[in-house]
Amino acid sequence: MTDAYREGLERRPANFQPLTPLGFLARSAGVFPERVAIIHGPLRTTYAEFYARARRLASGLRAAGVAPGQTVAALLLNTPPMLEAHYGAPMAGTVLNALNTRLDAAGIAFILGHGEAALVLVDSELAPLLRDALELLEGPPPVVVEYTDPTAEAPRIGLGQDYEAFIAGGDPAFAWQMPADEWDAISLNYTSGTTGNPKGVVYHHRGAALLATGNVVHARLAEPMVYLWTLPMFHCNGWCFPWSVALVSGTQVCLRQVRAGPIYRAIAEHRVNLLCGAPIVMSVLVDAPDVERVAFGHKVTFLTAAAPPPEPVLAAMAGAGFEVIHLYGLTETYGPAVINEWKPEWDALPASEQAALKARQGVKYAALEGLEVLDPQTMEPVPADGETVGEIMFRGNVVMKGYLKNAKATGEAFAGGWFHSGDLAVKHADGYLQIRDRSKDIIISGGENISSIEVEDVLYKHPAVAMAAVVAKADRKWGETPCAFIELKPGAEATADELIAFCRERLARFKCPRHVVFGELPKTSTGKVRKFELRKQAEGV
Amino acid sequence: MTDAYREGLERRPANFQPLTPLGFLARSAGVFPERVAIIHGPLRTTYAEFYARARRLASGLRAAGVAPGQTVAALLLNTPPMLEAHYGAPMAGTVLNALNTRLDAAGIAFILGHGEAALVLVDSELAPLLRDALELLEGPPPVVVEYTDPTAEAPRIGLGQDYEAFIAGGDPAFAWQMPADEWDAISLNYTSGTTGNPKGVVYHHRGAALLATGNVVHARLAEPMVYLWTLPMFHCNGWCFPWSVALVSGTQVCLRQVRAGPIYRAIAEHRVNLLCGAPIVMSVLVDAPDVERVAFGHKVTFLTAAAPPPEPVLAAMAGAGFEVIHLYGLTETYGPAVINEWKPEWDALPASEQAALKARQGVKYAALEGLEVLDPQTMEPVPADGETVGEIMFRGNVVMKGYLKNAKATGEAFAGGWFHSGDLAVKHADGYLQIRDRSKDIIISGGENISSIEVEDVLYKHPAVAMAAVVAKADRKWGETPCAFIELKPGAEATADELIAFCRERLARFKCPRHVVFGELPKTSTGKVRKFELRKQAEGV
Repeated sequence: MTDAYREGLERRPANFQPLTPLGFLARSAGVFPERVAIIHGPLRTTYAEFYARARRLASGLRAAGVAPGQTVAALLLNTPPMLEAHYGAPMAGTVLNALNTRLDAAGIAFILGHGEAALVLVDSELAPLLRDALELLEGPPPVVVEYTDPTAEAPRIGLGQDYEAFIAGGDPAFAWQMPADEWDAISLNYTSGTTGNPKGVVYHHRGAALLATGNVVHARLAEPMVYLWTLPMFHCNGWCFPWSVALVSGTQVCLRQVRAGPIYRAIAEHRVNLLCGAPIVMSVLVDAPDVERVAFGHKVTFLTAAAPPPEPVLAAMAGAGFEVIHLYGLTETYGPAVINEWKPEWDALPASEQAALKARQGVKYAALEGLEVLDPQTMEPVPADGETVGEIMFRGNVVMKGYLKNAKATGEAFAGGWFHSGDLAVKHADGYLQIRDRSKDIIISGGENISSIEVEDVLYKHPAVAMAAVVAKADRKWGETPCAFIELKPGAEATADELIAFCRERLARFKCPRHVVFGELPKTSTGKVRKFELRKQAEGV
Repeated sequence: MTDAYREGLERRPANFQPLTPLGFLARSAGVFPERVAIIHGPLRTTYAEFYARARRLASGLRAAGVAPGQTVAALLLNTPPMLEAHYGAPMAGTVLNALNTRLDAAGIAFILGHGEAALVLVDSELAPLLRDALELLEGPPPVVVEYTDPTAEAPRIGLGQDYEAFIAGGDPAFAWQMPADEWDAISLNYTSGTTGNPKGVVYHHRGAALLATGNVVHARLAEPMVYLWTLPMFHCNGWCFPWSVALVSGTQVCLRQVRAGPIYRAIAEHRVNLLCGAPIVMSVLVDAPDVERVAFGHKVTFLTAAAPPPEPVLAAMAGAGFEVIHLYGLTETYGPAVINEWKPEWDALPASEQAALKARQGVKYAALEGLEVLDPQTMEPVPADGETVGEIMFRGNVVMKGYLKNAKATGEAFAGGWFHSGDLAVKHADGYLQIRDRSKDIIISGGENISSIEVEDVLYKHPAVAMAAVVAKADRKWGETPCAFIELKPGAEATADELIAFCRERLARFKCPRHVVFGELPKTSTGKVRKFELRKQAEGV
């Protein structure tokens, strides 16, 4: 009988199609063509227009000589072209590589080179940065298309052809194709790891569709989704929300910068009911002066990740009308793959206990098949005692395809059948996990990863530095900032300001230490720096 | 560069797992072990218990000698064991075949034989029916496990071992396996087609997971889901809702029979916010006497399918506090794959226009990749003019794996790369489709399919019948009922009551004609009965 359930029942076009989020936009354009899909300042884009512009972009990419399987980079702020690129690039069969706008020219040049970008979309405000990066880039230069935002004050610098002309030249009825295979790459996102050079995390259509759907399952909105872009879209493709919103035919509200006044005004004016961001966005909201606040009467959900929300911030957010949900994930897991599922009975607990519960990373997303805290040596689960530390590991369909052109790192990351996050955690008795430390020496500042080793590498180049160790220092505004501990060479001299300035010449500004402490570094018997102790010291700096 | 996105980036256990709804229950049991998963009369089953019982059932099936890939049939009402079977059977690697409880013994015997059921779960109330069916069954008899519902008055008849003892003997920690392949069969659902013998529609894990998730996307509930079982779970696996509810850790309220009083009481007492059913369930609700009604103040969504909701019923449902969403699908599409997406601007229209809009079947589910009205000859889409009739065709991941042991029917159903529904429809200018006629001669009565040809076959066996044609007659309560048109043999005599009694001896009661009309049948020049005309005549009967 086993065979009867297989014979003659193979996959066919009628019953097997590649999973992809691209159809979400096509469906919404068909069902709700007149509904506003994108709001950007005074501009309104309907779903019919959004879909037509995405197809024009796809057609234009092909006409510009970009072939399927090539990379299209985007150095854009949270503006309509970034949303169009999330559909247009993969509709052309190309892979979208959204670039961190806070990187320096060298960082961008590295990524453009490594990803072999065939074309770059750039905001005029960032075009000077791209120009500098292109000067550093070896190999053939990519085609550049420059977007000049009519709502911004950054004038066109003419680094490449005009985005609107590029769109106008495209075919609004372009016959985009579904991916040949749902395992095909849809996007590329660089992340800082333990080494200075970032790794290119490849997402596939299957995972993007599933995570985007998972977001909708967990957001639990009864009303049509109105989503405000306070999370950078270059960050894990905005946690896949450019696709989630189109799945439910919602409205996306763009925002070039995270500032309290515009956020409050957008929430009130457009009845925004969902936004995401690192804790710094919450700080911006709760620290806003009264003059920037606008009252709103509806329920607004705020999804946060990157660091546990502190109790006073949670209390202030609740007071300001936001319901905060704590998520956790990595670039390698398409953004959020873990959720602090809140239990109604916890509402009755004292605020401090609630904050302690909310600080835990939680349990797996419904779209994630496996989440465990394992002993990385034995690959056995740690006891759920809230004390034994292990490594958080993921397994499932919302785990990346792997690292681009980096078989070694991919193999290590997937050793033993699980994705090794590098984050150390305990598992509580109720199964919720909580991060205790990061094994990867990553500092998360304003939601962005900083490799402590990358910063140390720069410090080591200073002639006065004998030894350097960089650790995270908790910061109410940024979540964390880099704090450097320095042993100077015998007889050498350097000031904190001098070292910070030295870093700024060589690193993106957000990666540079905010504090520098001089003295002998604590070391293990084998000479390894005891960063655990430094982190404690940094608290008092 | 194309190769760079493939090389070294193949599927691995860490990033590729079979899609299946089975993990939904495991996750909810892990996260919300104490939450009530199932309510049945005074009984409460938590998620921890639900999961443990499903694993016990899976373990028990294996111990009873049922092998992976074999069929487990269920002749059960909407009770907890039916929910347990939706997880337990596939957790044992077996395929769940939920049987229509309204079939007669011959119909059940055919299905048990065709599906080669190795074991049957049966409710004591239905055990006499099963006993009769087993007497008709050729080949090895299945193991029988009898569930005696403590909330019902049907005593145990001892046809097989006791369900609770069977569960008690199972292992609550049974190491169930994910399916080896997401394309593996999860369930088997028989449907009446154009021939008398029903066809076995095979569902796979991938489609079940995606449709179950699609239900959640479209139900749009902000509150935890509390689902009431007014739709038979044997019908397309209850449209996959046994899996949808566990995905969101909701509560399922069981119901042995669809009666107004218990439904209203359950809604009020348990704060039910979602229920499904054919139009007959709405009739039961709106026709209920005041004494059976219980007031409720919260929003309740009613998903209906099978026939367009009539305007007075819609108005009465709205008055009773229900929001009605009209869905459409077939057994072959896992239940609902089409939704009448309601546009907020339609709320301002007169009630009659709203009812006309609500009567349209609508647009594809987000989980469905392709939906079109095609000319079945040319396979070209019909113009969206609201007039040109074509056949509704589906393409995508929520289309069945195929018909069991019926390569011919499978091939025909999937000809040209689309699933041919057999339903004729027009496409309106806004892309919404609306059924105009069914090409398959199916009558849908109380949500169940009746093959008109099966009924005609029986009538033809009566010695007085020269020619028989059975068509659907609209019925406020049942949606449709069969109406027979009969040409008697020259000199022969028969009464309507006699023919109906003749059918009742040979067919399940719900399939028998309610009306019989005697006279010459209208025919085409080639001698084919003009059923279109008979349907018009039936309206006046």
